[in-house]
Amino acid sequence: MKYINGGVCAAKGYTANGVHCGIRKSKSKLDLALIYSEKLANTACVYTKNLVKGAPLTVTRENVADGKAQAIICNSGNANTCNADGIEKARAMCKLVAEVLPVKADDVVVASTGVIGQTLDITPISNSIKELASGLSADGTAAAEAILTTDTVRKEAAVEFTVSGKVCRIGGIAKGSGMIHPNMATMLIFITTDAAISTEMLQKALSCDIENTFNMISVDGDTSTNDTVCLMANGAAGNNEITSEGADFDEFKAALNMVTTAICRMIAGDGEGATKLLECKVSGADNLNTAKICAKSVICSSLLKAAMFGADANWGRVLCALGYSGADIDVNKVDVSFKSGKGVIDVCKNGAGIEFSEEKAKEILLEKEIEILVELNSGNASATAWGCDLTYDYVKINGDYRT
Amino acid sequence: MKYINGGVCAAKGYTANGVHCGIRKSKSKLDLALIYSEKLANTACVYTKNLVKGAPLTVTRENVADGKAQAIICNSGNANTCNADGIEKARAMCKLVAEVLPVKADDVVVASTGVIGQTLDITPISNSIKELASGLSADGTAAAEAILTTDTVRKEAAVEFTVSGKVCRIGGIAKGSGMIHPNMATMLIFITTDAAISTEMLQKALSCDIENTFNMISVDGDTSTNDTVCLMANGAAGNNEITSEGADFDEFKAALNMVTTAICRMIAGDGEGATKLLECKVSGADNLNTAKICAKSVICSSLLKAAMFGADANWGRVLCALGYSGADIDVNKVDVSFKSGKGVIDVCKNGAGIEFSEEKAKEILLEKEIEILVELNSGNASATAWGCDLTYDYVKINGDYRT
Repeated sequence: MKYINGGVCAAKGYTANGVHCGIRKSKSKLDLALIYSEKLANTACVYTKNLVKGAPLTVTRENVADGKAQAIICNSGNANTCNADGIEKARAMCKLVAEVLPVKADDVVVASTGVIGQTLDITPISNSIKELASGLSADGTAAAEAILTTDTVRKEAAVEFTVSGKVCRIGGIAKGSGMIHPNMATMLIFITTDAAISTEMLQKALSCDIENTFNMISVDGDTSTNDTVCLMANGAAGNNEITSEGADFDEFKAALNMVTTAICRMIAGDGEGATKLLECKVSGADNLNTAKICAKSVICSSLLKAAMFGADANWGRVLCALGYSGADIDVNKVDVSFKSGKGVIDVCKNGAGIEFSEEKAKEILLEKEIEILVELNSGNASATAWGCDLTYDYVKINGDYRT
Repeated sequence: MKYINGGVCAAKGYTANGVHCGIRKSKSKLDLALIYSEKLANTACVYTKNLVKGAPLTVTRENVADGKAQAIICNSGNANTCNADGIEKARAMCKLVAEVLPVKADDVVVASTGVIGQTLDITPISNSIKELASGLSADGTAAAEAILTTDTVRKEAAVEFTVSGKVCRIGGIAKGSGMIHPNMATMLIFITTDAAISTEMLQKALSCDIENTFNMISVDGDTSTNDTVCLMANGAAGNNEITSEGADFDEFKAALNMVTTAICRMIAGDGEGATKLLECKVSGADNLNTAKICAKSVICSSLLKAAMFGADANWGRVLCALGYSGADIDVNKVDVSFKSGKGVIDVCKNGAGIEFSEEKAKEILLEKEIEILVELNSGNASATAWGCDLTYDYVKINGDYRT
């Protein structure tokens, strides 16, 4: 099992494209993406738990109720959420796909991201749909580009693995950046695989995986209304279909986890305004839930995030975040260290400060990827959460996002 | 019942002082406060729910276990938390007070605020204790100044009211600014009253009040390790002691609430880096808990806070925050308006956007105090939460707090 190049078209039998249709003002910004599977694919989705749900989620949920989909259409620049006619517009997007590709409208996954509460103009989409479909190719980069909003980099990852002697591939693209604090689902993530796997096992693998990946990221504590993860499996690799638990399913889950973990790191590291990826690794917890709660609480602390921006080894804020996390821990047993490519430094033992070189700490914290290591010394469970620093640019980006 | 000038010395029989002792480097910054009651006072306290608790809280809890206290000593610049010898140092502070005033060491409330995890040097405190005590006067401003950290203004409020024909006073001072997201207690708040009231009723009034006041503020979602609210009642007003529920107790609770509400608004409006006070008023909820959860969720949204900094009427972020709050609401019934001294503007009806003048909205949102009005249209319960905008300066202040 290994990482390979590519994203949503890394697996056999998928093509994609992205164009600028005009929802976004800047002509240099692609804003409409299409992903197409040659065969009808088994499909699993998870969605935001926000009670305010984007209209596209309602339509997607209807369309994948039978566990099948064949195409994904996604626009950026407008979330098509909190609109009187959102569902109508989301259905219209699916119909447009059915007009230009040999798919049924109700086999289309639809997603939107951008401003909430503004009417979505369907005209730019209908004007561009033919161009979008005719440009489909095995190069997924334009689609990866078109789903972004304030993201600064494309997010793609792919993995090659083997099931019943057949080489399979799984790869995905993601849109992250702001309003990132997933709850059961996250952001926009489209993952495709050519492995043959039943819808039931596909959903099982996805629902299990997100608990330790996307649900462990936070950029700003805001859970979006449009978070969607969609995983399609078209079976083009020719392996024996995975229909139950066992070695093949484990192999598939491991490959999926390699893709989702890579995407998590990309999303957190490219959080709005971020200059650093923060990775909080909690170990020595007496159960998994405690480890997860602690890791998430640290990664969500605005004060710690700001300290990391300033490369300030203010470990008291780590202790503070553990203390209010709600987890049942013995704070007098906690050790804290900071780690990066420049080394590792211990800053707290048994819940109290220890002497350390501020100079060395600064050198470590000036790196772009920082690990915050928390040892609870109470058991064997561990968990990782991902986040980013809090910066001037986060405020700037969100102080006037709509203009 | 009316607001009067003054703070912690507005009530009869209390004196206070504040000095620069040297815990903080800047000589212009007072860092040690003392509040003294001529008589032993009935005393009620509430504390942070953070599992990491400052050593001063442990000592204060011991000292007020009998429901009595006569003095408060508080330093800024060092939280005396997560230190090996914190409790010893906190006890030493109480002993120093007993050496210079006619009080017992175990009748002293002790509090500290500042950096976590650095050893507290007791020498500057012992060197200054005589000067501190000899300067006690009915002017509480130096004490109000000395408990501040990154606060930009003193926080004082006082109210005059009447119990059994006797004029009583209640007033307090507060330290707020950062790491503000109280849970059952908050920040440092010292309130004194000359009303006669039993410790039991005093605690009841305080514990009840904070649920609707301090626990409804958030600056940054971080619950401090040292939050303490202390309320002293010395009976100097000469009223019949309040020992049970009834009209007198209601009068006292109303006066307390006037003081705490005023302090809440001051703390939120002076949150770290804040340029605006945000007040979210949720009405039409089917129960109080729902109203409170909704109001608090809106006030905590980093995205909404950044939008308010930019005077951007991005109401979709209000809906989003309601949606992920965890409250059981019908999002299709929600109305949202923004209000300030410049007027009021409706921006969302029945969960969907409505046309509004962006120009008018901007004018309203450029004010220093903004009300975010949320009508759930599902019942009669309402609640208010207070917060502030998220600004460049919040990041700046917290990016390098320790230097």
